[in-house]
Amino acid sequence: MSSNLGIPKRSEGFSDWYNELVQKADLADYSPVRGCMVIKPNGYRIWELMQGALDGMFKDTGHENAYFPLLIPKSFLSKEAEHVEGFAKECAVVTHHRLMANPEGPGVVVDPDAKLEEELVIRPTSETIIWNMYKKWIQSYRDLPVLLNQWCNVMRWELRTRLFLRTAEFLWQEGHTAHATFEDAEREALTILEIYRRFAEEWMAVPVLSGVKSNTEKFAGAHHTYCIEALSQEGKCIQAGTSHHLGDNFARAFDVTYQSPEGKLEYVHATSWGLSTRMVGTLIMVHSDDKGLVAPPRLAPVQVAIVPLGKDEAAREATYSAADRLAEDLKKSGWDGLAVRVKVDKRERESPGFKFNDWELKGACLRIELGPRDLEGGTVVLARRDTGEKATVPLDQVVSAVGERLADMQRALFENAKRFRDENTFRIDTWEDFEKHFEGEGGAGFVLAHWDGTDETELAISERTKATIRCILREPLHPDDAKPGKCVLTGGPSPQRVVFAKAY
Amino acid sequence: MSSNLGIPKRSEGFSDWYNELVQKADLADYSPVRGCMVIKPNGYRIWELMQGALDGMFKDTGHENAYFPLLIPKSFLSKEAEHVEGFAKECAVVTHHRLMANPEGPGVVVDPDAKLEEELVIRPTSETIIWNMYKKWIQSYRDLPVLLNQWCNVMRWELRTRLFLRTAEFLWQEGHTAHATFEDAEREALTILEIYRRFAEEWMAVPVLSGVKSNTEKFAGAHHTYCIEALSQEGKCIQAGTSHHLGDNFARAFDVTYQSPEGKLEYVHATSWGLSTRMVGTLIMVHSDDKGLVAPPRLAPVQVAIVPLGKDEAAREATYSAADRLAEDLKKSGWDGLAVRVKVDKRERESPGFKFNDWELKGACLRIELGPRDLEGGTVVLARRDTGEKATVPLDQVVSAVGERLADMQRALFENAKRFRDENTFRIDTWEDFEKHFEGEGGAGFVLAHWDGTDETELAISERTKATIRCILREPLHPDDAKPGKCVLTGGPSPQRVVFAKAY
Repeated sequence: MSSNLGIPKRSEGFSDWYNELVQKADLADYSPVRGCMVIKPNGYRIWELMQGALDGMFKDTGHENAYFPLLIPKSFLSKEAEHVEGFAKECAVVTHHRLMANPEGPGVVVDPDAKLEEELVIRPTSETIIWNMYKKWIQSYRDLPVLLNQWCNVMRWELRTRLFLRTAEFLWQEGHTAHATFEDAEREALTILEIYRRFAEEWMAVPVLSGVKSNTEKFAGAHHTYCIEALSQEGKCIQAGTSHHLGDNFARAFDVTYQSPEGKLEYVHATSWGLSTRMVGTLIMVHSDDKGLVAPPRLAPVQVAIVPLGKDEAAREATYSAADRLAEDLKKSGWDGLAVRVKVDKRERESPGFKFNDWELKGACLRIELGPRDLEGGTVVLARRDTGEKATVPLDQVVSAVGERLADMQRALFENAKRFRDENTFRIDTWEDFEKHFEGEGGAGFVLAHWDGTDETELAISERTKATIRCILREPLHPDDAKPGKCVLTGGPSPQRVVFAKAY
Repeated sequence: MSSNLGIPKRSEGFSDWYNELVQKADLADYSPVRGCMVIKPNGYRIWELMQGALDGMFKDTGHENAYFPLLIPKSFLSKEAEHVEGFAKECAVVTHHRLMANPEGPGVVVDPDAKLEEELVIRPTSETIIWNMYKKWIQSYRDLPVLLNQWCNVMRWELRTRLFLRTAEFLWQEGHTAHATFEDAEREALTILEIYRRFAEEWMAVPVLSGVKSNTEKFAGAHHTYCIEALSQEGKCIQAGTSHHLGDNFARAFDVTYQSPEGKLEYVHATSWGLSTRMVGTLIMVHSDDKGLVAPPRLAPVQVAIVPLGKDEAAREATYSAADRLAEDLKKSGWDGLAVRVKVDKRERESPGFKFNDWELKGACLRIELGPRDLEGGTVVLARRDTGEKATVPLDQVVSAVGERLADMQRALFENAKRFRDENTFRIDTWEDFEKHFEGEGGAGFVLAHWDGTDETELAISERTKATIRCILREPLHPDDAKPGKCVLTGGPSPQRVVFAKAY
């Protein structure tokens, strides 16, 4: 199901490299439906592991999963004024509920008699249908908080798509919580922001900036939006997760009130937050190299690929069974609380070189070579995907050597990405430098600059440079960043530097 | 989010009992979208646990997960002739991709300029879109087998719906495999049938009949269909999982061939198999009682509900912290390979009686009562959901007592359901008895009767009794069932008894 013909180099074109890598490493493929992707097993495994990690953190903080309908009545979308204005226009609309045999030829046609009274929209996000249910479920302060999350597919009719990063259909989790007070909702929005940050840094090994969105970039219908932002190897920013404090906007739109302990009717306060399969793309873009996928061990589909070698059947019999035993030992010993994800490569028609390349392409963190001579000497060769380091390790020490290397690699990937991010974070104070910095194609890292706080200036800057405000940091990278200054475009007063970048 | 007003008795009407139970026990709710349900946290947790169990069995047998698009081009559906004929007509059709502000008033309307060139259908099942991809992925015998599964939502425009059992949208897994030969596909279809049977019996504690569908009941496009069939407490049959051997029908329709080791082009053989959230409804219908949900411990959302009691704050302080410690001990000790799913109920405005009823309604397998006097005596009261048995257990023996009772309950539920199934399995040889047996509303268990093997007779029987052939058993319940006889309707020759029942 994959080819081993190699992929373009990053230096020859980051986009081509990414697109080829995603397809050749069995991560995703284009589908016949415009804008929709197929997530292939290697890519889906990363998403599954991401789900496992996040779901655990959500449950540890009191959240439960539920499932709400895919289809939303058209009228729901316009109940919250800002939401419909800023959001839900480009979406898939269901108008009929039946096909029929084509009376004029082969195939099927839409049955004109099966037109829906009200059109239904495939959820682009589920605030409206969920708040319609919360109206039914929430009456008293005793019903609060409601801390629900759902794992599902959503659809937004995107014109310019890129596998994982931007597709018409994508998978995500969307949390929707209801609280008695603004302060409770604020605490929740920040709890989730911190979960997202930890997930990105501790699991994905991707350092992120975390902060609040400017007014024009916040979610349509939110009071304010928190986000985490990552940086790809080409210096472009990837919005990697958002946590919205919705105030009581949706409660007002759907008339959701609760009776307080004192018997007063109060509007409910809300948050919503989401993280999607875009994170698989982020992981790929941050860590991978010209040989293929590099995945952080905690989320790698394959942590160890064992390649037993042998020129004839007798030799293979010995190395195959040694490889199987080793695989069992690794699974049993576990790493990071789970069985080690190990594959034994017994393909007999492929050369060792082909197999080594193939596992590098597909992102196995470690490769174990096990030939007849290794077996005689009671050793294996252990190669690390990110550094290429090879070592000869005694068979009886492989399990601990694997564990150490996986931990080292997890740490090293984060440190490398962090160093790259730091090296590509700039402070710019004049418009001339700012404009020059963002010239040309590709990204140019994060730029911390002063901004006068107006929508007009933000718009003017993005029109002239394609750079947008990614976030206003919650904690400055350097204390000086939090000091007042003058707007890089207008010279107007600015309370602090904000983060600009070109984004996908 | 739930009420404690009680639910109707099963004897007063099985449907009412089921519908009320599902809503009041926080399992599911009706949504504003016709035919679509909301799966509430208690119900979703059962589904998550089901997913965990099945996914493990799929992975242990070499399957991987992937994800294919939600939307299918209309023309794909008519490529496999039987498939479109028997299947994909009642479905949600996407015709447009944009809404716009209503030029004539408030709200939004469908943008007439955003009409799709080809309509898209929300997947009712994914054979067509997947085989379209397999054409791209499969060239050589080295690409086979392909063993993929996906967890997703699907949609079929159902008119008569019932929460979990039959809804327009539902969640399921659908496996789609590709093999070199008919025999390989047959082996796969039977591997999955056995996984489904084990899952139903060992996890759900639901005994099932497993066999092959008659020609008229098989999946449209299949060579033949295997199934497992369960029996509800009202004696109606629930089709609980199907495994289809598709022959090379879809490979021919989508022109998927592979080159054999000898260099010949051969058509690929296929299976598909699915199991859905209908199983949550099955679990409820088989085990629950007039007090609410009874769930088998391996799939119960809450295995242990600890209710600490105390009339004043001082008393509660002691019992609450003892309850918390006990909960931690249970989580740490684990049961069946997972942390025990335990809740400590600290609601202070509800009476103990209310709480006991509430946990019975919601299906906690065991309830632990922990009052100040229990604490003084170093004991707790441990009550079992299915039998109502109460026992006083020393605090330091609670962990092992819980483990034993959970295991006992898992076994007892299966045995009770099995006894009920056996008591409601009949052998009938005359048409008079057969017709009389199925008279009236409700179900009437499984009837093993002879059938002449023709579609016409099958149809005539179902028209006259509403009973259908559920399956032809792979292994007879009794050796005599496999002996030839005379068709219960026509008197024609019959090679063996087949299973009739009324089904949901």
